[in-house]
Amino acid sequence: MVTLKQLAKELNVSISTVSKALNNSEEIGEETVKRVKELAELYNYKPNKVALSLKQNKTKTIGVIIPDILNHFLAKVLFGIEREAANHGYNIITCISNESLEKEKESLQLLANGSVDGFILCVAQETQMKNEVQHFKSTIKKGLPIVMFDRVAHDVLCDKVIVDDFESTYNATKSLLEEGRKQIAFISNIDDLSVGKLRERGYAKAILENPELKVLALRMGRYDDHQKKIRTFFEENKGIDGVVAADSASGVIAINMAASLGFKVPEDVSVIGFSSKSVSNHSIPRLTTIRQHAKDIGANAAQLLINRLQNNLGEDDVKTKIVKTSLIRSGSTL
Amino acid sequence: MVTLKQLAKELNVSISTVSKALNNSEEIGEETVKRVKELAELYNYKPNKVALSLKQNKTKTIGVIIPDILNHFLAKVLFGIEREAANHGYNIITCISNESLEKEKESLQLLANGSVDGFILCVAQETQMKNEVQHFKSTIKKGLPIVMFDRVAHDVLCDKVIVDDFESTYNATKSLLEEGRKQIAFISNIDDLSVGKLRERGYAKAILENPELKVLALRMGRYDDHQKKIRTFFEENKGIDGVVAADSASGVIAINMAASLGFKVPEDVSVIGFSSKSVSNHSIPRLTTIRQHAKDIGANAAQLLINRLQNNLGEDDVKTKIVKTSLIRSGSTL
Repeated sequence: MVTLKQLAKELNVSISTVSKALNNSEEIGEETVKRVKELAELYNYKPNKVALSLKQNKTKTIGVIIPDILNHFLAKVLFGIEREAANHGYNIITCISNESLEKEKESLQLLANGSVDGFILCVAQETQMKNEVQHFKSTIKKGLPIVMFDRVAHDVLCDKVIVDDFESTYNATKSLLEEGRKQIAFISNIDDLSVGKLRERGYAKAILENPELKVLALRMGRYDDHQKKIRTFFEENKGIDGVVAADSASGVIAINMAASLGFKVPEDVSVIGFSSKSVSNHSIPRLTTIRQHAKDIGANAAQLLINRLQNNLGEDDVKTKIVKTSLIRSGSTL
Repeated sequence: MVTLKQLAKELNVSISTVSKALNNSEEIGEETVKRVKELAELYNYKPNKVALSLKQNKTKTIGVIIPDILNHFLAKVLFGIEREAANHGYNIITCISNESLEKEKESLQLLANGSVDGFILCVAQETQMKNEVQHFKSTIKKGLPIVMFDRVAHDVLCDKVIVDDFESTYNATKSLLEEGRKQIAFISNIDDLSVGKLRERGYAKAILENPELKVLALRMGRYDDHQKKIRTFFEENKGIDGVVAADSASGVIAINMAASLGFKVPEDVSVIGFSSKSVSNHSIPRLTTIRQHAKDIGANAAQLLINRLQNNLGEDDVKTKIVKTSLIRSGSTL
């Protein structure tokens, strides 16, 4: 990589002359501009982005703070943010809060020190539980805008991108009712998350709209033996003819377990679950899935932030975007 | 949070006096040191980490560059790095290269500008294919050490953490041979990665040690219909009694497909696959897995880097660590 200094030396002019020539300054004669540009092209000179950023007081970098990197949904959102940011010439740097309020605060501080122009983040579980928002507000006050996605702090005035968790299980349950299913169960291993609770409520609403039906939920701990729990659940509740699964594994396990217990899927029991395309492949037949469009969520968050940065939007102009889930039908439903 | 300025104002001394007193400077009288420290303690004053770092020329931050955030193995390594770094009081900031050489270079430049003390990275696919190493070498030359993991550049003198891919499938295949299996197949959807090739070679070596046996490999593209390919493979190769799977999905799909074709697992066919604990749960019976200990890989990489930073190790002191896989037996083998 050739530098301004090397170009200046070779051309026997000052560094400042080279820099001004490359920026088409009128202070520099046409002939010199031409010579400088030709040599710069010959050596494939690229302006030092960091120096440029310092000058413009913009880093062209977005800080992303995510609570859990092992969560595939969050990893996919990050992927979507990264791709959209790159399309607009922005870099991203990422910190992981590990669901901790303290780490979230530290990450904001670490990056707010001139490394980034703004933040995209998903609120840590501890922060949600303690309902702490001061660190978000003071970051925004410093002139660093925040866009929140998925888990958001309602008390903070900022752009948000959210998912329709409640509606998604409500609609999935309705679609099983339309198949004529009478004993639809809800299975979840994410009962401890706010989105897990929303999903159960969506299911329950659809069931309770039919006075003759009853809710039936299997709430598993994260470290339970999910195969065993689901097997026992099927054995103790004869006649289950539909399953709505809240997490990415339970639907797939329910299908394979039903098959191994001698039920036919979807003839005897229909299954729908939140999942990704790749995991929905792990069962035979394939799982009919509620797809979250994580990459779109990421892309939307990046667009909101970049739009805000480039147009200097104010607090009176915050937006909340809902990215709707889709029901992708496959072999596990009629 | 109280600042140096506020302490100084309250004590009616200069900021510099407060700072020096807190650092036990001999320039400041004992009485003043005592007054400053008492007030600092009263207000629970914490030194500004960023300012401290600038002074000591240390950021206490590690830059991590990973090629693909949707790869669960890499996400887990990142988790391991993060946890180990936190144990030593280091932050991490992460950039994603998206398997691109250009992005990898940009990420190194972005963070090398005073944001981090050193790097932990997994080399991008494009970088490996072009065998480009100059950007690594010049980063190290600038005084920022690099630790590479999983995919490493052999021509760069630096600490490395690698996995025993070849041995792992060699041993897995041997263990199926010891069960008395005669027609063991290899199934992979990661034939395009160097680790995928190593895994196939490990399998082939174990097979070819037995002159009467033949290698039989199903290499699938990433976007193929894996269920269909595996079904056809079973149908066209009657008598398969063992499967070694190179990626996290193929073993699980092979088990569920064998069951749906009327084979008994493990009586008729034994299956072993690279996978994670959670995915191995997706088949009935559960998949016997080759477990990679991704978190240990991350922890080892962080230890190597932090040790290097804290002890100013030189180029004559580079280490390569091998983190061995384990075979975790479950229901899909005898």
